[in-house]
Amino acid sequence: MDVFIEPIGRLINEFTKLPGVGKKTAQRYAYKIISMTEEEAKQFAESVLYCKRRVRYCKVCGNFTEDEVCDICKRRDKGTICVVKEPKDVIAMEKLHEYKGVYHVLHGVISPMDGIGPDEIRIKELLARIDGDVHEVIMATNPDVEGEATAMYIAKLLKPLGVNVTRLAHGIPVGGELEYTDEVTLSRALLERKQI
Amino acid sequence: MDVFIEPIGRLINEFTKLPGVGKKTAQRYAYKIISMTEEEAKQFAESVLYCKRRVRYCKVCGNFTEDEVCDICKRRDKGTICVVKEPKDVIAMEKLHEYKGVYHVLHGVISPMDGIGPDEIRIKELLARIDGDVHEVIMATNPDVEGEATAMYIAKLLKPLGVNVTRLAHGIPVGGELEYTDEVTLSRALLERKQI
Repeated sequence: MDVFIEPIGRLINEFTKLPGVGKKTAQRYAYKIISMTEEEAKQFAESVLYCKRRVRYCKVCGNFTEDEVCDICKRRDKGTICVVKEPKDVIAMEKLHEYKGVYHVLHGVISPMDGIGPDEIRIKELLARIDGDVHEVIMATNPDVEGEATAMYIAKLLKPLGVNVTRLAHGIPVGGELEYTDEVTLSRALLERKQI
Repeated sequence: MDVFIEPIGRLINEFTKLPGVGKKTAQRYAYKIISMTEEEAKQFAESVLYCKRRVRYCKVCGNFTEDEVCDICKRRDKGTICVVKEPKDVIAMEKLHEYKGVYHVLHGVISPMDGIGPDEIRIKELLARIDGDVHEVIMATNPDVEGEATAMYIAKLLKPLGVNVTRLAHGIPVGGELEYTDEVTLSRALLERKQI
């Protein structure tokens, strides 16, 4: 006999599908649901469905949207495109409240080890967006091996089109300490040092 | 303007209601929901509602149940009652597969600091269960101040009824090390030492 009654066991099982949630955490979440009022639990369940049903990908940039084209694509300066790996990277950039251009979400990076080639991510769609109005493409993929390789690959495709391709700067994080900065980062910071 | 579109923001808000879930974790959970198929998201949402609607408290012992009386109360030896604070403590005991008696869930412990007196927890219900057939009540509340006080309080009420009241043993945890055992536990272990 399982120690949990069926409805609780089933809910625990669903919660373990969330990232980083093990059996023990799922159990705590399930208890929380049980301790909610019926109204609260209903609202919780409905938010899940509502989010899943309402959210789709912008047909231009690939970001999350409720409409066919997202608010950012609709309203902002199309002259600059910031290329990111995932929709959550758009959120990270948007939190700055500094960037005024549009985005292009690749939905992945080139990773031969995982069988992901250039055709598996939204590179074609990016190329199709490049017209005379686009004067800069900012590569903002993660600073890891796959992110760098993807940035280089895309830059190579874009340059013949006469578009200015830039990359987010590497260096020591603001507030960081030299002592604890890893060697690769430190050597990049040295290499890319600037006149003050 | 919020950085999240409304359906995502709403779902993130719901996830932060779960214990120990902050905004960042809630965000990861929401992305996971979006990446699910519609069928999977539906199953997730339905499990929440199903669990909330099906699960209630056993009218005898106060444990989670789908029926009026739980399976444990229906099938097991009513001569021994194990008194615990919460339904999850029943799970902890059940995982041993050793205890063969029934339970009584107090749904709290006496805690004057939080305004919880003896009448706020299920002590009356426990007393009502004591009849000639009950030969032992095992106090299995947590070994903290409130848990100990509650155990003592209940023991005092039960003893005049001629029932044998016991308490889970205190001591060094199996596999633990003397060096890292806290002083209170170690002194209890010394006090309650046993002939070998």
